[in-house]
Amino acid sequence: MHETGAPAVVLVRPQLGENIGAAARAMLNFGLGDMRLVAPRDGWPNPAAVAMASGAGRVLDAATIHPDTPAATGDLNWVAATTARPRELVKPVLTPREAAAEAARRIAAGERVGFLFGPERSGLHNDDIARANAIVTVPVNPEFPSLNLAQCVLLIGYEWRLTVDAAPRRLPEPAGARPATQAEVERFHAALVERLEARGFFFPQTRRAAMLGTLRNLWGRMPLTEADLRTLYGVMRALNRETPRARGQGADEGE
Amino acid sequence: MHETGAPAVVLVRPQLGENIGAAARAMLNFGLGDMRLVAPRDGWPNPAAVAMASGAGRVLDAATIHPDTPAATGDLNWVAATTARPRELVKPVLTPREAAAEAARRIAAGERVGFLFGPERSGLHNDDIARANAIVTVPVNPEFPSLNLAQCVLLIGYEWRLTVDAAPRRLPEPAGARPATQAEVERFHAALVERLEARGFFFPQTRRAAMLGTLRNLWGRMPLTEADLRTLYGVMRALNRETPRARGQGADEGE
Repeated sequence: MHETGAPAVVLVRPQLGENIGAAARAMLNFGLGDMRLVAPRDGWPNPAAVAMASGAGRVLDAATIHPDTPAATGDLNWVAATTARPRELVKPVLTPREAAAEAARRIAAGERVGFLFGPERSGLHNDDIARANAIVTVPVNPEFPSLNLAQCVLLIGYEWRLTVDAAPRRLPEPAGARPATQAEVERFHAALVERLEARGFFFPQTRRAAMLGTLRNLWGRMPLTEADLRTLYGVMRALNRETPRARGQGADEGE
Repeated sequence: MHETGAPAVVLVRPQLGENIGAAARAMLNFGLGDMRLVAPRDGWPNPAAVAMASGAGRVLDAATIHPDTPAATGDLNWVAATTARPRELVKPVLTPREAAAEAARRIAAGERVGFLFGPERSGLHNDDIARANAIVTVPVNPEFPSLNLAQCVLLIGYEWRLTVDAAPRRLPEPAGARPATQAEVERFHAALVERLEARGFFFPQTRRAAMLGTLRNLWGRMPLTEADLRTLYGVMRALNRETPRARGQGADEGE
């Protein structure tokens, strides 16, 4: 019982195989089947994961392995990052319930969505969070907020499961309104950064990382469509043109 | 943070100490503190429970021990029995969400309520279920319904917790997160259009109105902050610079 288009569960740099196996069980408990592993610490396959998953081994068998988070989320239109603590990022902070409802709405509209879970001890890097479209935080007891990885997956899966029959259906959106995928946004970001680099934007160098993070976070928060990206490419090229088109340069330089 | 009058968690004939400890953690995660143990198989206290509970040892310390279910639930006004499968009993069958809502209503009215959880393998006896006022079943994947004891406690605790702080939580906004005013967005839009104009972006002229509309619509849909606008101004200026800063132009041209 994997729902078609059910959310992907992306485990970023998971440490213990046992936790990967327990997460697979939690996923299957609520009908989630798309597990994606980013650089699992102990390699893959992992016998400890298999032992723990027992009846949910099929989730592990179907899991895909990726070198980094962008590679794992490139095809997704909307990504929510689970965090234990609030972070200093301007981004919607959702409860699992709100996030599941948002995921269900988007899936009904034909989008692909996923949830990011960080390594057991440290949680997600700010980089991964900056690329996400929303933050999900479980409202735990602040005096004892120690949810483990599989418990966090369980709660997201549970909330997802509850939306499956209740999700409102939406009409397909008009052409060009298709939400951009993470990979498309990433490509635009890279093109922009390259040009900004050439123009000396990242100055002084000490602030480079922060400036990059701000930019990435900006795209992550915006509900960018395919058409928006085309417009932004056009704006970027026009601003960046050495000679104005009116003065002689006709065609755009292409991608 | 134990809510006064929060539901009791009654573990009936639990087998493994580890599961009792894990249940204690799950309880404390969501602010539940009233654990009641009915005839734990391995006696009490149980070192394995203590080891597993780690930070939640205070829940075990406060746990009460009872010879049978009626002794454990005697003071409660309403008891819900958790079961994996529907039973042949005429009794309301609630989801965890419905049961938590019912519990919250009763607690608000001054009642005392509790949730019964059966032994790991066999689940609750029909006797215990018959005494309960309602049945709670988690809507798991029927092909893989293998929730363990602590997971079941976790889901009930989570739903209970959500009834307590029903108010959606938002993070305090970091500096620069003030949403931009319409006037600020308009000023940025005008500055951008002026530069795009000079660069021959609006070509052919027949499409000018549509292109302007697309741009304005883009900013309108985005939840832009003050800080975002500063970043976008910086990007615009950097792209639009005739000579890269590295080649000599130091200061920005100002607004």
